[in-house]
Amino acid sequence: MYIEKSLMQYALDTRSSDPTPGGGSVSAYVATLGSALTSMVGGLTFGKKSFQDVAEETRVEMKKNAEELENLFNELAGIVDEDTTAFDKVMAAFKLPKDTEEEKTIRSLAIQEGYKEALEVPLKCAEKCYRVMEIQGVFAENGNVNAITDIGVGILLAYSGLEGALLNVTINLGSIKDEDYRKEVSSKVSILLSSAKNLKEKGLEIVYKRLEG
Amino acid sequence: MYIEKSLMQYALDTRSSDPTPGGGSVSAYVATLGSALTSMVGGLTFGKKSFQDVAEETRVEMKKNAEELENLFNELAGIVDEDTTAFDKVMAAFKLPKDTEEEKTIRSLAIQEGYKEALEVPLKCAEKCYRVMEIQGVFAENGNVNAITDIGVGILLAYSGLEGALLNVTINLGSIKDEDYRKEVSSKVSILLSSAKNLKEKGLEIVYKRLEG
Repeated sequence: MYIEKSLMQYALDTRSSDPTPGGGSVSAYVATLGSALTSMVGGLTFGKKSFQDVAEETRVEMKKNAEELENLFNELAGIVDEDTTAFDKVMAAFKLPKDTEEEKTIRSLAIQEGYKEALEVPLKCAEKCYRVMEIQGVFAENGNVNAITDIGVGILLAYSGLEGALLNVTINLGSIKDEDYRKEVSSKVSILLSSAKNLKEKGLEIVYKRLEG
Repeated sequence: MYIEKSLMQYALDTRSSDPTPGGGSVSAYVATLGSALTSMVGGLTFGKKSFQDVAEETRVEMKKNAEELENLFNELAGIVDEDTTAFDKVMAAFKLPKDTEEEKTIRSLAIQEGYKEALEVPLKCAEKCYRVMEIQGVFAENGNVNAITDIGVGILLAYSGLEGALLNVTINLGSIKDEDYRKEVSSKVSILLSSAKNLKEKGLEIVYKRLEG
């Protein structure tokens, strides 16, 4: 499993011309790190005296967010390997026999089903990244100011993970023949991307404002 | 060394409240992956028939770029650990005696010297990221279209590494008393950031255009 490989080995495997790991797996790992940095900021915030100045409602929310970040971290880390096997089903479908018309139909359906399942993996990744970004907005506003650059880096990484994952959804969508499905996913991609851009800009604005203090 | 730790362990160490690894080290690793994805696209491009359609001058440039990317990869990977020790000198300076006026002066000078050296590490990281991004522009235009999303993810990561590193330069600049030095570095930061934003937008524009084919 890639998640158990060393940073250097994973980077070297990425650099090689082998298709895996590619941009999808890498996007998930980058987002895992973005989530990790946000958790770290939580750890550097909750025990501090200045945290008592934050409204109680927000403090409760942030503690809940910290628990949720642990799940998001694990889910994103899981996608690092899940993404590299997402295409196994497509590849297997391409190897099905295609001698008779019936075989051709079965093969074609299996390929389409494989593509749909494969693109659900980066789509799930992007949705997890988006949730990390929502949480980062609250942490940017109320987290320990001494760790404000770590929130900033976290936002950049969760956003990159999201856009990177959506690039992988989009390229695979090109192989899908089901027009309704294509439209549905394509509209999801647009909404996620523009909402995430908005969150990123707002989050970084807070980061730079607090950084210049 | 962090670069030899597993992806999971590095992410867990980032998540912990220990100060290292923080956003600086993580930015360098993310940029390493961005450089690796770009090299991979080179590997998926140079042997292909379609590469012969690219102008000879550009082909020669891209081969040289590919060699340069190997160096940038190694330099960025080196910063993953270098960043975590960048502050050792600052910390040591803070522990110097401060009983006499002379000791106070020596201690203060050593702290200032430490901060300057420490911020040179993320500044170097940002400069390496910038060079990766310049190369990515050429690869986005002329690389194998089947790997266009990997170029896109690579651009997002090199850019995030750059902005993440510059956030770390900026926060440490706040501790520097030498106004000339502060102005000089601050102007470098502004120029690097705005030029990189420009490169990112241009690069991603090409990626989306070729993706939509």
